Amino acid sequence: MRLFVGAGLLAAAWMGPVMADPLPSWQGESKEKIISFVEAVSEVGGADYVTPADRVAVFDNDGTLWAEQPVYFQLIFAVDQVAKLAAQDPSILTSDALKAAAAGDYEALAATGKEGLLEVLAASHTEVSLYQFQQDVSAWLEEARHPKTGMRYDEMTYQPMVELLRYLRDEGFQTYIVSGGGIQFMRVFAEDAYGIPPQQVIGSSITSSYEMIDGVPVIMKGAELFFNDDKAGKPVGIMHHIGKQPILAGGNSDGDFEMLEFTTTGEGARLGVYVHHTDAEREWAYDREGHIGVLNRGLDEADARGWVLIDMKEDWSRIFTGEGAE
Amino acid sequence: MRLFVGAGLLAAAWMGPVMADPLPSWQGESKEKIISFVEAVSEVGGADYVTPADRVAVFDNDGTLWAEQPVYFQLIFAVDQVAKLAAQDPSILTSDALKAAAAGDYEALAATGKEGLLEVLAASHTEVSLYQFQQDVSAWLEEARHPKTGMRYDEMTYQPMVELLRYLRDEGFQTYIVSGGGIQFMRVFAEDAYGIPPQQVIGSSITSSYEMIDGVPVIMKGAELFFNDDKAGKPVGIMHHIGKQPILAGGNSDGDFEMLEFTTTGEGARLGVYVHHTDAEREWAYDREGHIGVLNRGLDEADARGWVLIDMKEDWSRIFTGEGAE
Ligand SMILES: [Ca+2]
Ligand SMILES: [Ca+2]
Repeated sequence: MRLFVGAGLLAAAWMGPVMADPLPSWQGESKEKIISFVEAVSEVGGADYVTPADRVAVFDNDGTLWAEQPVYFQLIFAVDQVAKLAAQDPSILTSDALKAAAAGDYEALAATGKEGLLEVLAASHTEVSLYQFQQDVSAWLEEARHPKTGMRYDEMTYQPMVELLRYLRDEGFQTYIVSGGGIQFMRVFAEDAYGIPPQQVIGSSITSSYEMIDGVPVIMKGAELFFNDDKAGKPVGIMHHIGKQPILAGGNSDGDFEMLEFTTTGEGARLGVYVHHTDAEREWAYDREGHIGVLNRGLDEADARGWVLIDMKEDWSRIFTGEGAE
Repeated sequence: MRLFVGAGLLAAAWMGPVMADPLPSWQGESKEKIISFVEAVSEVGGADYVTPADRVAVFDNDGTLWAEQPVYFQLIFAVDQVAKLAAQDPSILTSDALKAAAAGDYEALAATGKEGLLEVLAASHTEVSLYQFQQDVSAWLEEARHPKTGMRYDEMTYQPMVELLRYLRDEGFQTYIVSGGGIQFMRVFAEDAYGIPPQQVIGSSITSSYEMIDGVPVIMKGAELFFNDDKAGKPVGIMHHIGKQPILAGGNSDGDFEMLEFTTTGEGARLGVYVHHTDAEREWAYDREGHIGVLNRGLDEADARGWVLIDMKEDWSRIFTGEGAE
């Protein structure tokens, strides 16, 4: 008897890693659909088998892997950075937009329109060395806290999505970020937050140049837009960086529509996934209207296209990675 | 006695993979320097140890990984492609440059200058779907043979460099191509020829766009230059695609100077490598003068900068991968 108990425990311990739930913060139908897909493409000899080299999964970042309310976190960095620069040299505040940013007044900043926003982005993102810029982002992540949750911004990543990324990699996928956010901004935290190394981060960018400064080679960020990694730009960015059509794409807004469309067209098993923000209590609830993360066409067509619509409120038992960190 | 012989054989077999020469087509000092570097950065606990994630190696393609004489192979593709298109529709031959290309007359083509070359590149590389373009390149590689060697172009890769790429990957390096050649052109053969997958190929590119054609999403190659991955563009391309400073760079011309400079500046063990074309008999001999692969500053400064100058004639016992393929 004792022997049988021992053998049972041993078997349980041995089976443990195989039987463990790969997506513990997920529940319901979307979880089942995702696991079915991953199992189908990884089953050697199965009808839907995909060779590991072609198991490419791409994910939007803002609103898909981490939160994006009340405004894109990168804009909060920009505003905080203008305030920091102005504290050292107030003469940089040459416009209403920059003054609003330095005062942390988002309403006044919004009133300056798109041009004002571009001024704030320029002041915080351009004509600086790439090294210095990434140091600035890193320092900001250490200090800044979200106004509603009080969390570090890089702890407002979605725990279920972090689990999904890890699960995909465990099953031989390469996981990429394909985001409208800044490529060099995201690289500062993507590896620690998501396990995604710099070469697998694709994003929007401004031009940069190679310069010798005091005999040392330096990459300088310029001031012109180089690539806008949004909407139809996402498939273009994917084929430029990866050179291969993904088989899984995840997003949360109509800015991801073309990426999901591109990924899920063609032969073989393919999966599109939309994160639907339905949880006003634990996160935010928004879709068809608003200034950020607007999802209309995606909501209308997801069913017909066989895309998984993740109901954040129902399908996720936990939201932020940072909630479990205390 | 018999037992001892058996044990000896067993030990030899077991040691085999460890003791095998990783660079069998190499000899001399450059081989020693490269192996010393690789061993130093891979030795856990050693002073020069580099974590595998940071073992990034970048290589130019034309003249570094495969030959580039009498002209860049991509230009030969362009000329052959114009001839192929003209056979289907002679009305495309609207200029002297295009007529020269269709006739395979490189001398007449050269006489039309840079503008003529751009016309030929445009006719063969632009306003075509990415899929069709890569099919064209693939078909060309199957059919075309080099005028001097009679080999397939993708067999005129340098066997010693193919060995080096494999050796580096075996030692935990990520190997990248960073070339002035077309990013989507090189991706057609880089995986088979070098073991380098599409996402590790960086090159020059033209703009592209995402379009729906007959209800199917298609990436269309446009007509404007998007990125020129040459000279100071190489470090920029590296930081855009990889986001990380390499520790090993290989090139063959002054177009690679900034890439080697960028790679070998800074703390830790770093290696720059120049392929010096010194073998007029088995390959070609050229450096300071000519229309292709000009190497002046690199030759002048290699010693002082500690870069390895590979003497093709002396250091390589074999040149082309295709020589051993029969
Ligand atoms: Ca988004
Ligand atoms: Ca070259």
